[in-house]
Amino acid sequence: MVANRILGNEGVVDAFGHISIRRPENPERYFLACSRSPGLVKEDDIVEFDLDSNRLDGTNRAIYAERFIHGCVYKARPDVMSVCHSHAHAVVPFTVTNTPIEPIWVMASGSGAGVPNWDIRDEFPNEGTMLVVNDATGRSLAKTLGAGRVCLLRGHGAVIATSELKATVMASIGLMCNAAMLIQAHTLSQGRGDAAVKHLSPAEIESTNKILLGPLGLDRAWEYWRVRAGFPARDESR
Amino acid sequence: MVANRILGNEGVVDAFGHISIRRPENPERYFLACSRSPGLVKEDDIVEFDLDSNRLDGTNRAIYAERFIHGCVYKARPDVMSVCHSHAHAVVPFTVTNTPIEPIWVMASGSGAGVPNWDIRDEFPNEGTMLVVNDATGRSLAKTLGAGRVCLLRGHGAVIATSELKATVMASIGLMCNAAMLIQAHTLSQGRGDAAVKHLSPAEIESTNKILLGPLGLDRAWEYWRVRAGFPARDESR
Amino acid sequence: MVANRILGNEGVVDAFGHISIRRPENPERYFLACSRSPGLVKEDDIVEFDLDSNRLDGTNRAIYAERFIHGCVYKARPDVMSVCHSHAHAVVPFTVTNTPIEPIWVMASGSGAGVPNWDIRDEFPNEGTMLVVNDATGRSLAKTLGAGRVCLLRGHGAVIATSELKATVMASIGLMCNAAMLIQAHTLSQGRGDAAVKHLSPAEIESTNKILLGPLGLDRAWEYWRVRAGFPARDESR
Amino acid sequence: MVANRILGNEGVVDAFGHISIRRPENPERYFLACSRSPGLVKEDDIVEFDLDSNRLDGTNRAIYAERFIHGCVYKARPDVMSVCHSHAHAVVPFTVTNTPIEPIWVMASGSGAGVPNWDIRDEFPNEGTMLVVNDATGRSLAKTLGAGRVCLLRGHGAVIATSELKATVMASIGLMCNAAMLIQAHTLSQGRGDAAVKHLSPAEIESTNKILLGPLGLDRAWEYWRVRAGFPARDESR
Repeated sequence: MVANRILGNEGVVDAFGHISIRRPENPERYFLACSRSPGLVKEDDIVEFDLDSNRLDGTNRAIYAERFIHGCVYKARPDVMSVCHSHAHAVVPFTVTNTPIEPIWVMASGSGAGVPNWDIRDEFPNEGTMLVVNDATGRSLAKTLGAGRVCLLRGHGAVIATSELKATVMASIGLMCNAAMLIQAHTLSQGRGDAAVKHLSPAEIESTNKILLGPLGLDRAWEYWRVRAGFPARDESR
Repeated sequence: MVANRILGNEGVVDAFGHISIRRPENPERYFLACSRSPGLVKEDDIVEFDLDSNRLDGTNRAIYAERFIHGCVYKARPDVMSVCHSHAHAVVPFTVTNTPIEPIWVMASGSGAGVPNWDIRDEFPNEGTMLVVNDATGRSLAKTLGAGRVCLLRGHGAVIATSELKATVMASIGLMCNAAMLIQAHTLSQGRGDAAVKHLSPAEIESTNKILLGPLGLDRAWEYWRVRAGFPARDESR
Repeated sequence: MVANRILGNEGVVDAFGHISIRRPENPERYFLACSRSPGLVKEDDIVEFDLDSNRLDGTNRAIYAERFIHGCVYKARPDVMSVCHSHAHAVVPFTVTNTPIEPIWVMASGSGAGVPNWDIRDEFPNEGTMLVVNDATGRSLAKTLGAGRVCLLRGHGAVIATSELKATVMASIGLMCNAAMLIQAHTLSQGRGDAAVKHLSPAEIESTNKILLGPLGLDRAWEYWRVRAGFPARDESR
Repeated sequence: MVANRILGNEGVVDAFGHISIRRPENPERYFLACSRSPGLVKEDDIVEFDLDSNRLDGTNRAIYAERFIHGCVYKARPDVMSVCHSHAHAVVPFTVTNTPIEPIWVMASGSGAGVPNWDIRDEFPNEGTMLVVNDATGRSLAKTLGAGRVCLLRGHGAVIATSELKATVMASIGLMCNAAMLIQAHTLSQGRGDAAVKHLSPAEIESTNKILLGPLGLDRAWEYWRVRAGFPARDESR
């Protein structure tokens, strides 16, 4: 619940977008909010799903049409414990151009290098659909994500998947901040040749992630986001 | 009233700009606020007009000089039930350049493809006027809008017209967000050729609008905007 | 006092920048705040000066070093009743490049066309000064302002001078918003040739200003800015 | 403590970044917060360190891994009394491109001309590290800073070091604002040749700093930042 509100407050999601966790004691289940903007989610809005994204709450309140993003990633990636579907505005320009969204900022190393861009048109050219509302499109997206932590969705947003809720939030916010900085770096480098933008090297990404996605990095950042989203600093609820 | 405050809060309008609805039980009438910034409008600021934009409230408080935008669109388009005159800052750069404001983001499909840009100079070159303060300029604008949902106004803003208040708000906010993203996409694609920016296809626009402008999309977004504008989440007043 | 707080709230000024009015009943005097950020100014921070910018308050509290901007404009321009020294961040890029800050947006017509850019180096090349802290630099600036409403200061900000406090605020905010939009318009027009950015014509500027800088425009906008700055909507204090 | 909160509020730091002061009565000691986002720091979060960045507080609460930035600058620069490690987002694009971050704005003269950009890869190419978590990397950084006030860190942020806490805050905020403006100036000057962006001259920087980094400039700005960060205006606590 806290994670939902943090993402809403930082601008990773707006009216749309969502975040889920796999059920710790049962890897065949995941938790996701019902159909509300994440910034408004309350404790009792959380719904349990199986990995085919069937609801298990026995109610009929509205649920996210795009929950298949979560179910399909959990099916394809046993190591993933938390999935975010980001609508961060700064990320979208990279999904509709051929400019790679490589990490240039140390705090954004969570996304890793070589982030793929899934275009729903490639496998589903005749349907005109843009939304991941069934298992077939969800499987296609999970395949493009592969073994990575981040995959862009053309004209739409991104998926972020890691082994821990806080790391998923860190990578989602890092991706968004990095996107905004990278757009500005390209403004500066124009007329000077593309090579002028220095990306983090694979070794730098790996080395930084050991600290950033470890307890020292995650705890400091989590406290910061909690307070900004209106929660008390020290409590550990999520 | 809620719609006025939402538009003010999201930045679609500033001190200027406005939103109206056609009177449901009498298509020859529409409701629009008196001359106040939409973000400040209160219940009893709403005034009734006929389609020639004559006031029917029997008072003499100040009213919008540009109310003719609304009257003329309602006259030309029986299917339209709600009209927004947007002053969103991110939209204006597209009105003064030749760059089309095509939707690149799934949440912005409400504007449709091929958005026209009305330049008041084209039909009224000798008057120097920029404001739509009479029936002649309003008719000209409505003609350029044609059968679409969105028309830009050169050096000024945009008009958004749909069959429902919530859809007009959705399309107005989508247009603004898409504009900001598209400016950034052009920054990224410079030096790589214009073709690098991928627009939504007509089939994608149509397919997405079925969900986005249907109850699932509109209700989730409406709740989100209501709360951001300071209203309680669940109430259905507009 | 309200005007100070409005400018602080809208971002026209930050820790620095200021706004003054000429004393209505004595054109040889003007009122300006003591040395505080305009957003923090209170009623009893206002100090009276003569047109040589000598203080008349008999205290020794700190006052603005750059008050000579105001005194020199009032001396050179009997028609001017209110002067703003803007630090709006969006304006500064135009002061250090050769791109003219022509109005493209109808709400920004207050600045007029052909805004000059005063470079203190031109007349004072050997002093290294950037601040207008004496009569000589103030006179030079007023000369460049000429008969217009707006003059940029290279590497610094702008001066806005009109016949009325509210009109000075309107022109200051319009200049800032127009600057932000014009930067984006240039992003869009790059690779398409400069001619693609359409400025308001002189006739459009003149025609719009009749409404915008008249009571209908100023009162609606003033109420909007007042409320945003935390004042009640209807009171007429300034 | 106030300085921490100001930097958090203005966006110079986010979850990461920090500011320290040298102990006035013992130049072999400095004060720095424990491992929390600066915007959340409270009075009793401040920890004392020696110049080798060993903690002297006898507790085991988490401390900043990058405290060596501070210790190494204090060792190398006896004149420095306060050090800020900035994470300002607007600065990062300059650290990954070859565009110099020269001051163009009078309020940003605190950084001086010729700001160097330290790339940790240059001296430590095989470790993949990006963080300054030991004396060796800290010494390398301090060497690149040299006798100046500001040094960029590639892909990371900046270090700002001056003879006074308030001046360090002023230079940190000025650096950030100047970065944002300079990106926009480059947008405007593209297609017109780089020479079109006018930097402050060395004489202008020196002349302005006499006022800006003196009591008149620092006190006015400090009051402004204090109030924005939620503190009362007049108190002198830091």
